[in-house]
Amino acid sequence: MSVREVKALVFDVFGTVVDYRGTIIREGETLNAAKGLAVDWARFADAWRGRYVPSMNRVRTGELPWTNLDALHRMVLDDLLVEFHVSGLSEEEIDHLNRVWHRLAPWPDAVAGLTRLRRRHVIATLSNGNVALLVNMAKHAGLPWDTILSAELVRAYKPDPQTYRMAPDLLGLPPEQVLMVAAHANDLRAAAAAGLRTAYVHRPLEFGPERAPERADRAAFDLTARDFEDLAEQLGA
Amino acid sequence: MSVREVKALVFDVFGTVVDYRGTIIREGETLNAAKGLAVDWARFADAWRGRYVPSMNRVRTGELPWTNLDALHRMVLDDLLVEFHVSGLSEEEIDHLNRVWHRLAPWPDAVAGLTRLRRRHVIATLSNGNVALLVNMAKHAGLPWDTILSAELVRAYKPDPQTYRMAPDLLGLPPEQVLMVAAHANDLRAAAAAGLRTAYVHRPLEFGPERAPERADRAAFDLTARDFEDLAEQLGA
Repeated sequence: MSVREVKALVFDVFGTVVDYRGTIIREGETLNAAKGLAVDWARFADAWRGRYVPSMNRVRTGELPWTNLDALHRMVLDDLLVEFHVSGLSEEEIDHLNRVWHRLAPWPDAVAGLTRLRRRHVIATLSNGNVALLVNMAKHAGLPWDTILSAELVRAYKPDPQTYRMAPDLLGLPPEQVLMVAAHANDLRAAAAAGLRTAYVHRPLEFGPERAPERADRAAFDLTARDFEDLAEQLGA
Repeated sequence: MSVREVKALVFDVFGTVVDYRGTIIREGETLNAAKGLAVDWARFADAWRGRYVPSMNRVRTGELPWTNLDALHRMVLDDLLVEFHVSGLSEEEIDHLNRVWHRLAPWPDAVAGLTRLRRRHVIATLSNGNVALLVNMAKHAGLPWDTILSAELVRAYKPDPQTYRMAPDLLGLPPEQVLMVAAHANDLRAAAAAGLRTAYVHRPLEFGPERAPERADRAAFDLTARDFEDLAEQLGA
């Protein structure tokens, strides 16, 4: 089967579709100005994201019962506010900051690329973000998903196999007609193990301009693309 | 709380958003011509829809394990093909006919009304249709859902309470900020029992021009609307 026979594309979101680091820095600097803070938001963003996998692993190992990503983000945020000596925020302001993940900005090619891809394919998220987070993000950023698929629907986080199997199951397709798109090789390896096709997209600025981007082995994936416009081109969309 | 504070609208689909009876009749008549059949597709459509609730009840009572709506539609279709003396269809043709439910035409106001409503609200399905059916229908009809919520996600059919509770749970909202929109009073009564707001929309042609439409008691719902444009007007959208 050729990738031209793919019917649906499912997308990792954080880092692949949206720039979480850049958004957190921008919103954080606005908060610095408004509240007279001096937080280094690049370090803050890296720390917040750095505890993402460990916090999900607490759910995956059973240490925590099912906890959605908004709640995990908030647990980490509460710790970071102490560590970064941020005080004087109301509960409403902390909740608003936690929901910065609902307001992440898309990479510059994302909306145009997805709009093109959705003409001939079903496009959906396949993210560890909870449904509300992903729905609100799509409204905010103009991401034209056909539907939202989330780890929350199977109460298991990627890279657990049932998260990937959810996509062909719910979309009513054989796994080989579903293409997983991500900027992270480990996500794609787990998708491939569940029978999905894979497309690696380079996002060299995910970790900021000073850290080396992920280097992935092109041969490990069905497709490799510079961005979503390039992916659309390769899929004949 | 006023209905102006509603953040999300969730929609019954069959009969409320799309005209299943008209579509089945139109596609059926094309099949009559192509295959030399003489089926009365209005009667066929009524019989297919008439066995919808009984077939879901087989799942709800535990007589059948979880079975999605595509599979229930197919079980009924196989019976109806015998009863209506339809023979000579290949497996592929029968499967295509079963998937007429993926190709249902929207009521004339539906796309414009939803497009208007989605500007200021999250809009989603809340349907007994399976996810693939609803995604394919949205692509085919141009229905601009923010996401698809389906009975399949909780493996329970409306009017079971967990189907309605799924909407505020997954959208991250209190139930009273979610408005259920339907052309069927029983659906809205069950939604209200789960704490949702309710909007009744008149669909006088759902059962065809010769059968009386449902008559609903306006006082039982938070809103009553002529169609989705009227609903958008009432919600200030």
